Formats: sequence, structure tokens, C-alpha cells
Amino acid sequence: MPRRVKAEEKRREVIAGAAGLFDRAGYHTANMTEVAAAAGLRKPSLYHYFASKDEILFWIHEEFIDLLVQRQRERGELPPAEALREVMGDVLSLMETHRGHVRVFFEHYRELAERDRATIREKRDAYYESVREVVERGQADGTFRDLDPALVTLALFGMCNWAYQWYRPDGPLSSEAIAEFFFDLLTNGLTRR
Amino acid sequence: MPRRVKAEEKRREVIAGAAGLFDRAGYHTANMTEVAAAAGLRKPSLYHYFASKDEILFWIHEEFIDLLVQRQRERGELPPAEALREVMGDVLSLMETHRGHVRVFFEHYRELAERDRATIREKRDAYYESVREVVERGQADGTFRDLDPALVTLALFGMCNWAYQWYRPDGPLSSEAIAEFFFDLLTNGLTRR
Repeated sequence: MPRRVKAEEKRREVIAGAAGLFDRAGYHTANMTEVAAAAGLRKPSLYHYFASKDEILFWIHEEFIDLLVQRQRERGELPPAEALREVMGDVLSLMETHRGHVRVFFEHYRELAERDRATIREKRDAYYESVREVVERGQADGTFRDLDPALVTLALFGMCNWAYQWYRPDGPLSSEAIAEFFFDLLTNGLTRR
Repeated sequence: MPRRVKAEEKRREVIAGAAGLFDRAGYHTANMTEVAAAAGLRKPSLYHYFASKDEILFWIHEEFIDLLVQRQRERGELPPAEALREVMGDVLSLMETHRGHVRVFFEHYRELAERDRATIREKRDAYYESVREVVERGQADGTFRDLDPALVTLALFGMCNWAYQWYRPDGPLSSEAIAEFFFDLLTNGLTRR
């Protein structure tokens, strides 16, 4: 394996290990020695990859939002309802595969250095925007009711994102089943007709 | 004013000041000197009311959940849809009046001392349970569709609770208008009929 690829892989391992550690122990409590241990490194080797805990915090944020954006991009343009279902599935699936990233992304955004925060904010806003556009597309083609698309988007993300507070990978429902349930509830509503 | 009532009032002031401080500066960063200053006290006087930052953390949690429970109790039993609308209004209104409490409640539950955590968990679970029962009542009387009532409850709280991440008291919409919007979306769904 080329040396550069190997280094890239090790960086990813450190980020994943740190995300898990921050989720379990708390970002503020964890120190660089523990971050190193979580990735099977000694501290001097860790500093070969990352200069600080702040820097790792940034990369966790970046990986998380990039994953969401990438999945959406790879699917191309779907019919609006289908596109929303897939977005909800993406968010819920990350609760299963990236729980550490999820908590860090939702709870430690404010601890990012100012420049990093601006970078992440831009990506996050663009992602929300792209989902808002799906809602608008569904309104234009008559699929969805004419409700404020920004608030619909925030409601959708609220339902899905909040799962980081209660979702357990070993619980009775898969993340896919929950996404499907929420999609049905959001589109068809709770009221019986 | 009797001395006991005055002490009780001062305690509330300290809790409110601390909640605001933790929201702005972060719970981990803030120290007892700053907590005292936020309540217009010097540190020795603060220790007259609270032994530690942990203790204040507990009281912020307790006040927040007690408020929600109390509002629900005072209304008595309403028709199911009406009852859900009111719960959503309660949560959103606290984003306006108790933003510090809200962030602390959602992000620092895990930092509570173990016994405190058990106390808060019990209250919080009872509150969720009471909302789940409203959903079940609405299913029994034919108002709501027969969807898993626990997941419906988690979706409802997701929509509302998540607003702590984006709601701004000086934004274009009142917390009441947002609650009303979310209630309509949750009950009637996004799909046009």
C-alpha cells in the first residue's frame, strides 16, 4: 500500500476512535493520551497526524457532513417524496454507523475554532438548503402542501436528528424501519382519514 | 417578605443566571466565580445556596422538567389532538423563556451525578409516557392512525425539541406560531390530498 494511502487510513482510524471516545467520555474530559490510545497509537505518533483535539473535532464534523452530502449527490435527482425518504434514511443510518460523529456534530459545533465553524456551517447550510429545494420541488409538482418549506425541513431534521438522544443500535427497530416510520408520519400525518 | 421566601427567590435567580451562563459559555468552561457574578453574588454567598456546579446542574434539570409536567397537569384532560397541540406549545415556549435550561437539559444530562440522573430520568420518562398515553387515547377514540405510539411521541418531541438548535427569540416567527405549524404538519402530513 502506498505510504500516503496508509497515512490517510490511519487518520480515519484516529477520527473514528476519537469520535467514539468523545461520545462515551465527553469531549471536554477526554485528553490526547486517551485519543491516541483509542486509535492504538502512542501520543507522539498521534501528533504526527493531528496537532490538537480541536483539529480532530473539525475533522469529525467534516466527515459527518461530507458523508450526508455525498450520499445525496450519488443518488441524483429522485421524485420529491422518494428523495425525502432517502434523506431521512441517511440521517438515521448514521446513528447506527457513526454515533460518535453524530453527538459531536450536534453538541460540539460551538467548540469549533471560528474559521472551522464557518467551513462546517457553510456545508451544513448547503445541505439543509438542498433538502428545502426538494420540498419546494414537491410543492411545485403538486405532491406536497404549500407549507413554509424551511420549517418543513427543520421539522424533518428534528424528527430524524433527535434520534441521537434515544436510538440504540441494539434496540428492537433498525434505523431503516424508524426512517420509514417517520417518513410515513411526516408525509401522511397522524390523523386518521 | 419572610426570609425563607427570599432565600427561595435568590436560589431561583442563581439557577436562571447559571442556565444562561452555561448556554453562552458552556457548562464545562464556566466556573463558580462566574456563576456567582451572573446572579449578582460574590462566591462565598453563592456557596450559601449551592455547594457545587453539579448541584446547580441538577436544579436546572429539575426546574425544566417540573415546568413541563406542571403545565400539562394544570390543563387537565383535553381531547387528544388538543392535548398534543398544547404539549408542543409548552416545549416551544420554553425555547423562548428558558433557553439556558433547554440546552442544559438536552446536552448535560449525562454530566448529572448518578443519583440525580435517576431522579431526572424518572420524571422525564413519566412525562414522555403521559404524552404517549394521549396518542393512545386518540387512537382508541379513532382520531389518530394506529401507529406505534412510542415512535409517534419521539417524532413529536424530535420536531419540537430540535428547535433548541435553531430557534431564535428575535427571529421572524413566535414560538407559538412554530408550535402551531408543527402541530398541523404532524397531524395532517406534508402530502397534498
